[in-house]
Amino acid sequence: MVQGSSADTGVARRMASLLDADYVQVEHKLFPDGESYVRIPVDVRGADVVFVQTIDEPRDKRLIEAALITDALREAGARRIIGVIPYLAYTRQDRVFRRGEPVSIRAVLKMLYAAGLDALITVEPHKPEELEYFPGRHTYVSPMSLLARHTSRLVSNPLVLSPDLGGVRRAREFASKLGADFDYLEKHRDRVTGEVSMKPKTMRAEGRDVVIVDDIISTGGTMAKAAGMLRSQGARRIIAVCVHALLVGGALEKLLAAGVERIVSTNTLPTPEQVDTVDISPLLSPAVRSIVGTAR
Amino acid sequence: MVQGSSADTGVARRMASLLDADYVQVEHKLFPDGESYVRIPVDVRGADVVFVQTIDEPRDKRLIEAALITDALREAGARRIIGVIPYLAYTRQDRVFRRGEPVSIRAVLKMLYAAGLDALITVEPHKPEELEYFPGRHTYVSPMSLLARHTSRLVSNPLVLSPDLGGVRRAREFASKLGADFDYLEKHRDRVTGEVSMKPKTMRAEGRDVVIVDDIISTGGTMAKAAGMLRSQGARRIIAVCVHALLVGGALEKLLAAGVERIVSTNTLPTPEQVDTVDISPLLSPAVRSIVGTAR
Repeated sequence: MVQGSSADTGVARRMASLLDADYVQVEHKLFPDGESYVRIPVDVRGADVVFVQTIDEPRDKRLIEAALITDALREAGARRIIGVIPYLAYTRQDRVFRRGEPVSIRAVLKMLYAAGLDALITVEPHKPEELEYFPGRHTYVSPMSLLARHTSRLVSNPLVLSPDLGGVRRAREFASKLGADFDYLEKHRDRVTGEVSMKPKTMRAEGRDVVIVDDIISTGGTMAKAAGMLRSQGARRIIAVCVHALLVGGALEKLLAAGVERIVSTNTLPTPEQVDTVDISPLLSPAVRSIVGTAR
Repeated sequence: MVQGSSADTGVARRMASLLDADYVQVEHKLFPDGESYVRIPVDVRGADVVFVQTIDEPRDKRLIEAALITDALREAGARRIIGVIPYLAYTRQDRVFRRGEPVSIRAVLKMLYAAGLDALITVEPHKPEELEYFPGRHTYVSPMSLLARHTSRLVSNPLVLSPDLGGVRRAREFASKLGADFDYLEKHRDRVTGEVSMKPKTMRAEGRDVVIVDDIISTGGTMAKAAGMLRSQGARRIIAVCVHALLVGGALEKLLAAGVERIVSTNTLPTPEQVDTVDISPLLSPAVRSIVGTAR
């Protein structure tokens, strides 16, 4: 049984179909005082239940709802509860950067486990290691192949770039799927003006179709800056590829204004229609199968 | 050490003063994508730390922040972490009313414990038993004495009423502190018109100062209905007393329009200035002492 929830981009229904499982919509409402109410409208006793809940805005409400759905499934006697959380949130606070900070993703994953979640499946976490904070079974899928296949139709002999050193593994994998050149952007600070410029470490962008690959586009600040720099270095066209299109604070407009021709993303989050969206359901269904055998 | 957080009505500072402990403000900000950031700006290694975080709107954000603050304190090496959560939220979903529902308060309390909270102190939970879902130490304070003392100045020979059978224990305690008559409102449904009326089970409201006592005023629907009925039964004046003044959806205006002369509440939540507000800090400090000996 696959349950869709208040926060789902259609993934639950497609997963149910791919898994040949029943699809059920979790009941959901908001009390006047802002508390969430959820209810599982079917009998789940003894069943393995997959629920899909992505953490879009308001993110903390979505997280609490995930805990409430889990509690309700546990209370109702589900056998195993598998949470598919395509976009997980708080993944970038995966360590203490300044003394006194929390490891936010740890608190979030412990919360979900405490509510009774047996297994967690997500898409492209910021760092795969952070899923270890979830004490139950956990796995993730990487959509680099799907994204590369889609992007291959948009470009010719492209240069794939990671916007920074931290994203190299991900962007390199994307490049290899695409059979394309790969490099990463290096920052240079002008000693006199203090201005920061970016350019590919070894390759040249001039005349090339450039694809910048990152896991998350949030405000789009870094991506827009990179695009502007690459344009001025003579790039022919610039495509921005990401897994999770948060696109907050006018990011879409900012990217388009900076010369990004196209944005390619998955549907881990709802995306505006200007974004080329690749469905991740075909990746998630096998991940569920690997955990439950077959979902009933 | 007592830490105030993003959601505090001044209770943390007053508690620190009453406990003769340091007061510290937790750093707090919101990322553009809606994620919360918290940071403990002082060294807490080996210390017993009390943090105060009430669950006002947006409630789910406040809950997640409480978990993040707890994680940060744990990470930073605090000895014992005591969470003072004056208003706890989700306390009314303390059981399954319809099959398929969660026990929401259970999920919330497990989450706080999983984050590393050692002890929980709250004010007048909807049902005291529900705190048992918190596996660590827990206690609550009841402000009935404080509220009765304040109310005694507003009324003469009052009749204290519980708006329903469920609130009898609480309102009776209030009445006994006030040395006042006590009764509860009984609902009658007209068999022909279907209209619901309310009147005191045995006493008469006519000519009396009536005090209606409840734990929570949310939309104020029940309280306003009761006030209207009691007015038509000849009550001289009506005072509404509650512990937690949620007052959502125009509740204040609704109550005043229904003939409620005054609203008395505690400061477990921020209250509008028209509400007579009683400070609960003097009750919370001894509760902290009973848990930590003396807070440092």
